[in-house]
Amino acid sequence: MPDPTSHPHSGKGPRAAEAIFDATLRLLAERGYSGLTIEAVAQEAGVNKTTIYRWWPSKAPLLRAALLRARVLEIGIPDTGTLRGDLIALAEQVIALLTGVRTRSVVRAVTSGSGLPDDELASLTREFFADRFSREQPVFARAAARGELPPGVDPMLLLDLIAGAVWMRALLRSEPVPPGFAAAAVDAVLPARSGS
Amino acid sequence: MPDPTSHPHSGKGPRAAEAIFDATLRLLAERGYSGLTIEAVAQEAGVNKTTIYRWWPSKAPLLRAALLRARVLEIGIPDTGTLRGDLIALAEQVIALLTGVRTRSVVRAVTSGSGLPDDELASLTREFFADRFSREQPVFARAAARGELPPGVDPMLLLDLIAGAVWMRALLRSEPVPPGFAAAAVDAVLPARSGS
Repeated sequence: MPDPTSHPHSGKGPRAAEAIFDATLRLLAERGYSGLTIEAVAQEAGVNKTTIYRWWPSKAPLLRAALLRARVLEIGIPDTGTLRGDLIALAEQVIALLTGVRTRSVVRAVTSGSGLPDDELASLTREFFADRFSREQPVFARAAARGELPPGVDPMLLLDLIAGAVWMRALLRSEPVPPGFAAAAVDAVLPARSGS
Repeated sequence: MPDPTSHPHSGKGPRAAEAIFDATLRLLAERGYSGLTIEAVAQEAGVNKTTIYRWWPSKAPLLRAALLRARVLEIGIPDTGTLRGDLIALAEQVIALLTGVRTRSVVRAVTSGSGLPDDELASLTREFFADRFSREQPVFARAAARGELPPGVDPMLLLDLIAGAVWMRALLRSEPVPPGFAAAAVDAVLPARSGS
């Protein structure tokens, strides 16, 4: 498994940022966007409202920051030495995210909107996934350098197939994700089974 | 494109069933599960409450029936002569469902729960996707009969990869689904490019 500390969260924010992000995501999951207030976040996180307002003027930028920087939603960028190994490690992280007790309801709340206006939701999820995709670039750069990635292969399509299969199985079908699912999904899409 | 009338909706229900199902899904999308009431459905569908109660004693079985039988969520089972063609046709239908003006908000509402208790939501989506999977079986039976499906290939994994990629791109990334996406997704997962 990748080192979960390998992505530094060095963005601006108060020292209590992690508690604030956790409270923000938990409140969104429990009460929807309309129930997400700075006051409630402050209370849940045990900080003063002014601490939050100093960094985030309203709940929209606070939620954005929580999505992009909360440790609970973090992705570790693997470097296993093969594209296959890296993609399996990424898939295992998606499985953990979508099946974990703490994260599953947060993921569902965020992707459903929970009362966010549609355009704000689209903008948030677009930014969230664009951020992940840019973090995942080293996986494909290293694979290309090793000659594992044929020129015609679209990295975003590869990720969408693999991560999408996990979403389908875990969140939409609500079926258990069997052992070996990550490897089976990756082996189904890796051209020429390179790096296996 | 498959004939959208090829799946008969012969289940029990009043003649106004389609209007009732439409109203049910629209209200769920607009007001969430708590705002979904038999009274509101009757009003929106232009039928008497007793008409609805005659078939569905409460909103839970009504929503279940709407999900499984509403024409707007229907899937046509293609028979193009090749597994590749059938899978592309299925993928195109998922794309239409997730990007269509009428269906996109319904899909988002249903998969997010919109206030349904988690276990009821899991039960509903599980039944919805199990129903689709059973309807899709002829595609794989015909592919096996044509020798297009190697014994080791798991049909559900194939579908999860292809449909999941559409979900990722259209609903989660909120990115436009480019022309040719369905064929590219299918070609990425079809073993040995059979039937192409």
